[in-house]
Formats: sequence, C-alpha cells, structure tokens
Amino acid sequence: MAKSKFEYVRLFEVDDRCLPNTWIVVRVDGKGFHKFSTEHGYEKPNDIKALSLMNRAATSVMEEFKDICLAYGQSDEYSFVFRKETQAYSRRSAKLSTNVCSLFTSAFVYYWNEYFPTIKPRYPPVFDGRTVLYPSNQNIRDYLSWRQADCHINNLYNTTFWALILKGGLTPTEAENKLKGTLSGDKNEILFSQFAINYNTEPEMLRKGTVLVRRKVPVALPNGGTREKSQIVREHVDIIGDEFWNTNTHLLTLT
Amino acid sequence: MAKSKFEYVRLFEVDDRCLPNTWIVVRVDGKGFHKFSTEHGYEKPNDIKALSLMNRAATSVMEEFKDICLAYGQSDEYSFVFRKETQAYSRRSAKLSTNVCSLFTSAFVYYWNEYFPTIKPRYPPVFDGRTVLYPSNQNIRDYLSWRQADCHINNLYNTTFWALILKGGLTPTEAENKLKGTLSGDKNEILFSQFAINYNTEPEMLRKGTVLVRRKVPVALPNGGTREKSQIVREHVDIIGDEFWNTNTHLLTLT
Amino acid sequence: MAKSKFEYVRLFEVDDRCLPNTWIVVRVDGKGFHKFSTEHGYEKPNDIKALSLMNRAATSVMEEFKDICLAYGQSDEYSFVFRKETQAYSRRSAKLSTNVCSLFTSAFVYYWNEYFPTIKPRYPPVFDGRTVLYPSNQNIRDYLSWRQADCHINNLYNTTFWALILKGGLTPTEAENKLKGTLSGDKNEILFSQFAINYNTEPEMLRKGTVLVRRKVPVALPNGGTREKSQIVREHVDIIGDEFWNTNTHLLTLT
Amino acid sequence: MAKSKFEYVRLFEVDDRCLPNTWIVVRVDGKGFHKFSTEHGYEKPNDIKALSLMNRAATSVMEEFKDICLAYGQSDEYSFVFRKETQAYSRRSAKLSTNVCSLFTSAFVYYWNEYFPTIKPRYPPVFDGRTVLYPSNQNIRDYLSWRQADCHINNLYNTTFWALILKGGLTPTEAENKLKGTLSGDKNEILFSQFAINYNTEPEMLRKGTVLVRRKVPVALPNGGTREKSQIVREHVDIIGDEFWNTNTHLLTLT
Repeated sequence: MAKSKFEYVRLFEVDDRCLPNTWIVVRVDGKGFHKFSTEHGYEKPNDIKALSLMNRAATSVMEEFKDICLAYGQSDEYSFVFRKETQAYSRRSAKLSTNVCSLFTSAFVYYWNEYFPTIKPRYPPVFDGRTVLYPSNQNIRDYLSWRQADCHINNLYNTTFWALILKGGLTPTEAENKLKGTLSGDKNEILFSQFAINYNTEPEMLRKGTVLVRRKVPVALPNGGTREKSQIVREHVDIIGDEFWNTNTHLLTLT
Repeated sequence: MAKSKFEYVRLFEVDDRCLPNTWIVVRVDGKGFHKFSTEHGYEKPNDIKALSLMNRAATSVMEEFKDICLAYGQSDEYSFVFRKETQAYSRRSAKLSTNVCSLFTSAFVYYWNEYFPTIKPRYPPVFDGRTVLYPSNQNIRDYLSWRQADCHINNLYNTTFWALILKGGLTPTEAENKLKGTLSGDKNEILFSQFAINYNTEPEMLRKGTVLVRRKVPVALPNGGTREKSQIVREHVDIIGDEFWNTNTHLLTLT
Repeated sequence: MAKSKFEYVRLFEVDDRCLPNTWIVVRVDGKGFHKFSTEHGYEKPNDIKALSLMNRAATSVMEEFKDICLAYGQSDEYSFVFRKETQAYSRRSAKLSTNVCSLFTSAFVYYWNEYFPTIKPRYPPVFDGRTVLYPSNQNIRDYLSWRQADCHINNLYNTTFWALILKGGLTPTEAENKLKGTLSGDKNEILFSQFAINYNTEPEMLRKGTVLVRRKVPVALPNGGTREKSQIVREHVDIIGDEFWNTNTHLLTLT
Repeated sequence: MAKSKFEYVRLFEVDDRCLPNTWIVVRVDGKGFHKFSTEHGYEKPNDIKALSLMNRAATSVMEEFKDICLAYGQSDEYSFVFRKETQAYSRRSAKLSTNVCSLFTSAFVYYWNEYFPTIKPRYPPVFDGRTVLYPSNQNIRDYLSWRQADCHINNLYNTTFWALILKGGLTPTEAENKLKGTLSGDKNEILFSQFAINYNTEPEMLRKGTVLVRRKVPVALPNGGTREKSQIVREHVDIIGDEFWNTNTHLLTLT
C-alpha cells in the first residue's frame, strides 16, 4: 500500500531486543490496589476470590505465551518467566511487557464477574509491567525467592495486623504500633497466644503464593484408558528451597 | 519491613528514562484485531460503535494522565502524546507504555457493554504498546501526520473494497484484484461512478480519525451564568495541514 | 569467506543508534590528569603548551569527522558537537565515542613531541569518552555554556590559588583555606590588591577555553588573487551570550 | 565549587550500566589498518613486529584493569574479557569501552618506537571499541572461539595469497582468482606442493593469535630462593578445544 512522506518517523523507534540466552521476567503489578481492594470490599487480610481471579488472569497469559515456563503470583502482582531461548516477539522488551500486561489486565476485567458476581468494578483496574533479565539459573531462582520471601513477610504481617484489629479490637494505628520492630517469631507468638492461630496451618495459597507450571496430566479417554496432556496447574509450594527445583529439573536444565 | 538476602536481584532492573525535553508518544495497537473484529461482528468497512469504544478508552487514559496533551486514534490504534516536559513516572519508558496500555485495555473491556450491549466478548482483547521519542515540533507533527495519512489511505481502500463486495457483489479476491495498482483518484472514481458514493462526504470520524484535546468549555452555573472548565473533547479534523496547529498554538509552544 | 559455527555470538551485540534529529556531543576527559600534569611538569595554574596540544589533538578529530560543526575545549577535556543530521557511523553511540576518543588520544601522543620536545611522556596518557544527546538548540547552547562556565569558575579559582602559593608564599592548605567560601568578586579582589593581577586581562585562552569552528578563509593564489577555503580555526571567545551565535547563525539553523 | 544554572544538562546523560553477572567483552579494532599496514611497510602476510606491538599495548590494558582475566588478539584487533563480577567503572558500558580503547591506542603509539625504531608513524592510528555482554560460560567460550576461528581462516588465506604473489609471481588479482572457492585443504595443498610450506609448522602466534592471562610465575629472591608472583603471560595456544579451559579452570569457575 502507498507510503506517505511522513514514514521517516519510524526511524525514531528503537531496537530493544533482550540479550540472548538470558531469562526474561515480565512482572505485572496492580496500580493503586490498596485503594482498589478497599473500594471493592476485598476481605482482610486476604481475599481468596481476588487471588483466584489473579490466578485466572495469569493462566490466560500462560495459555497465550507458550514460552512462559513458570509464573509466580502473590498479592496484586504476578511474575512470568520466559524460557531463556524464547524468540517470542524477537525478544523485544516493550512488546513482551505490554502484551503480557495488556492480556493480564484484560483477563482480570473479563473474568471479574466469575469471581465477584455481585460487584461491578467501580473503574477500570490497572497493572503496570516491566521486563527484567536474569543471566544465570541462580539469579532466576533468587528472583523468585525474593518474591516468595516478600509474600511470606507481608502475609505474616498482614495476618497479625488484621487479627489485632478484627479480633483484638485495636485501631489500625494501635496495631501498627504494636507490630513496630517485631520479628517473625514475635508475630507468630501474638497470633498463637492471643488468637489461637497457628500461622503454619493457614492456607498455603496465602503463605506461599501461587506457582503456575505446565504438567502432563492424565486425561480419560472414551475407551476407558487415559492419555497424557500438558496442562497449566496451580501449586502453592515453597520455591525457595531446592526440593521444588529438584523435582522440576526440566525448568532449569536449559543451558 | 524486613528485606531478604534475595533483594540483590533488583540491581538487574535497568534505568529506562526517556531523554529530557523530547516529545513522548505511547501508541497502543490492537493485537489480532482483524480476527477480533470479524468474530465480534464489527460492521464493514467501519464500525462506529467500535471506534466510539476506542475513543471512550482513550478518554480514560487522558483523564488519568494529565500530561497527555493530545491523543489521536484510528482503526484499532491510539497514539498518546505526552508534553515534552512531563515528569510522569520520572519519564520511565516501560512505566509509561505499560500503564497507558493497561488502562486502555482495561477501559476497553470495562466499557464494552455500553457500546455492544448484546454481545459478550468471546475472549479478552489485547493491545500492545510502545514508547517513541520525537525531538522537534516538526517531528511530532510528522508522526501524527503519518498516522492520519495511514488512516486516509486505509479507509479509502477499505471503503472501496467493501463497496465492491457488499454492493458490487464481488468476492474478496475479485475486489482485491480490481484495486491492485489503483491510485486514490481511481478509488474515488469507482465509488462515485459505480456506487454513487462521494467519498468526501463520508463521516469525518472515518476519514480523519479522532483527535482528543483538552478545551475550555463553558459550563452553566446555578445563577444562570457560565464558567470555563477544561474538558477532553473529540474532534475529527485534519491535523496534517497548518490550520489545526495555528488555532491550537498552545500545543506546540513548549520550547 | 567461510563462517564458523560460533558466528551466532554476533547476535549479542546491541543496536545503540542515537535518536535522529538530535545534537550528538562526544566529550573526552583526561583520566587522572591532575597526577599526569604534575608528573610532567605542567606549569601552574595553566600550561599553554599543554592546552595547545589539546587543541592540536582536537583539530585532528575535526579534520577526520566532517560532521563535527564545533568543538570546545578547556583544561583536560574537549567536547565535539556533531550536527543533528549526521549519519556518521549510522549514529551508533559506541562507534562515535570510541573513534573520537581513540583519535584524540592517538593525536595527543603523536603530537606530544611538538609541544614538549624535551620531555618524554612517562606512560601512555588516557582519555575517557561519552556520548550525550541534546534535542534542542537551547539545550546544546546550555551544554556548551555549562562547560565554559566550568572553565571560568575553575580558572579563576586556580589562578588565585596558585598566585597565593607562587607569589604569596602560602602553602596549598593555607591557600585552600583562604579561598573557602569566597565568591568571584573576592577572588578578583585578592588577585588585584595582593598581586596586581587584573583577571580580565589574563589570556583569553585560559579564561574562555578554545572554540574550534570551520571558517572560510582567504587563500593566496599564484596569480596574486585569493580564493576561499574552509579551515578549522581556534577562537577564545564567549559562547554563553548571544553574540557568538548571532554571528555564527549557520551553526544552529539546522531544524 | 559553585554550580551554574546550566548544570541541568547533566540530566541528559544516560545510565548505561551492564547487566550484572554477565561476561563483559571490550573489543578494539584497528580503523583502516589495511591502508595503515601498507603505508607503514608491514611485512606480508604477517608482520611479527606489528603483532608484538599489539601484544604490548594489550598488556598495558591488562596491567591497568585488574578485572580483565583474559585477552585475545589477532591481526589488528584485541578482545578483553572482564570477569563477570567486575565493578570497574560501575560496569558502565561507555566508560569501559572508551577507557580500554583509549589506553590501547595510547600504548600503541607510545611503544611504537620500540618495535619500529626506524619508521615514524605517518599519522595517528585509530582503534574503535565496543562492549558486548555474554551471559554463560559457553557463550564467552564461543565468542573467543569465533575470534580464533577467524584468525585461522584469515591467516591460512593470507599465507597462501601472499605465497602465490611473493613466491609464485602471481598478481594480486590472479592470486585472488586462484583461491576463489577453495577450502582449507586446498590451500594447505597449494602451500605444500607449490611452495614446500607445511602450514602446521608456521609460527603459532600467526596461526593461533595471542592469549594474555595472568599466571603465578616464580621470581628469584636475593637469598637464592624463589617466590610466586602474578604476571601477565603471552601464549599462542588453541582456545577452541577443551584443553585450555580444563587446565585454566579458574577462568570460568565464577558462577
């Protein structure tokens, strides 16, 4: 088709291809979700429905991008790990971050009704996105450990904070002051002694976040047999220690 | 709050701040919208409702980002022009592109029902995004001219193509062959002589696309008077020639 | 010629082309020149021979790169301004900075003997380089003003500092303490009242630095006539005010 | 010291820090060295003095940058490998490439006289530089293999080409035509049958290029004993196969 004399402006676009042979992470993060969760009546300290909607949106992303080998989500964020060799969008950084971010957002709004059938969102929710590169297997594991440690730290804090308010009758300010300077052990102790909550028996989705991986799962056949099929499954397991990686060696064996 | 030993992975994030004193354009583009428009019964060659939904989503973006001084949309794409001096997100490229792209997508799904009340989207629609920098006023005008020239070229082609099919009874392949090698004048002639369509009287939204700018508009006061208020308005005007810029000198007077 | 299977490593090289229609500055800076100047007996506060050698090296750079329209040097640094439209090395940032930096360094060592015939350099001197982009004419003028203001500030300080030591008999520490907190006027006063030095009559090369530009100069012909020839000339003039730019309008008229 | 109002232009400088935990290679390349070597009477096909001067300049670079663990040179180019963890210049790409390039150039001119005592360089020689990142040990090995394979291919070609001219009496064009389409075996055969040259006994510096590494070497002590000292040594060995790396495991053991 004809081209205009203005076509030269395309030369101002930059080539932002990611370094080859490097893990590409795209992380999406809810924008202003503290406010969003309050305005939409999210349960405190955790709303299972909201987390499930996050997982649903992330699953849409993984269905679309076959080169995402693992995703990890917690709170209002989700990280998508593309395998080192991916050639998706020629590894162009902005293409990857905006496509993932747009699809995640789109699916979040699209499936909202399945998780919050009685509440209409008051305005369009927004997630930002970023692309980060990690060269070695240790680096990508440390990245994921960073996010899961963050999940643990925040969830223990929030669980205690809201117990003090909802069950202990403290104001938010009083709860905040009470927790200032406490260590993990202190918070576990408060939960157990004051509220008879054993933190370690809280739901794993809250304590560990959610890992999405592809697994071969058996599918029933009409003839009564089964066959294997690759599916995206949700797991709420520790990914900081070695066990997960030792039993999922295919994830990091890429040179 | 406590930090983990994995925190070092933040050092792998890159600083992607845009060059100062430069126009920043974020353009969002529908992904696979040829297929999407067919599957959702968009009218051919143009669907006014779909374009209006695009305009609605773009308005949400401009409401959120006060530093967007102008937006231009056509077909399944929208360009947002941030003023040269913007410090939004410290001018970080990925923050700007993903936030704009996510909000646009979110609003598109959120407001879908207002424009297509009887059709549920079959899957979450996706838009990609990119950030491009333009140093001079001439460059940013040429960028916008490029997009509007693209609108003109495509719309004239599509209008003729679909007239040949819907009114002329040609198959798509026959229509394509008929248009091969034709110039603008040829297409105008086909439209006029075969279908009595004067292309120049087609709706301006289709021929020119949509410009969003902020204008002071009079607002009625309880006492019967009026006051001025800044509003985002939609215009379907030529932005290639000088007239638009001469009557909107505030847009480019920034040094 | 045959290619090896290792050729793929070229894909790890990045495209670092500079934004079009933008001023490109390459600045070279002496590395450890405080030490270098002491070890090679540079006169204090200024060594005319050393500055002249810098100018000679910079002239070599301008002779090689026709798209450098202006260069400005002071102390142990030199800035080279490529015209906005330059396509030298396809505007690749590293190509520009390393070529300019290497040629500058090479010429500095090559011509050393012409300026310091009795001193052999004790080790190879080094200059680092960087590429910086400036979008507008005002920005590039402000960049050059920044360097010339730096020249003024440093030279006034150094002139006074060394007068206090060489003529006033102070130790470096005493001189430093005496100058702590002084303004320009104070330093001018010290120079004038204590050492009868009128700073404004100091050589302009020291107070203003050196500007290299190309000028048409008359060249004598064998027949007694003259013709014009473009030459690189050295000027020691103010480039902060408007006068220089008003009389050299060709430098900034590029759109 | 006082700052001027022009200081803001520093904000236009970009942060170009290299991705952490990644091998950084800076390669310098002679600019126009085909012409330079002809004009300075380099012996054909190889000039041992010129290669030795390259090695001398590279040694200066390694003496200065302790984080360069290996350098590899051939023809008019040299590659410097910084260890993955280097924090030299905060890993800023332009700082690394311009400093290495400037020092290499400077040392080349500085030591010229030691290798070419009777020839003054006719003009300042120039080397460009670039920074490339390699994430894995395999990648950095493949990079070095790429350069050494290039050395082999070019040197075999040049050795045959110049034998045909200098000993066979062919013109350059005739020699070129004769070699068109030949494989390695063909060239070895030409050398052996026509000129009695066994290519495999040619000097290793020419066939393999030069590797610079740091080694502990024994140093004689006044008391008659010895102690170990780290020194930069030159080796002309194969670095494509495993043997070199198996006997130098310290080079790649960094995680």
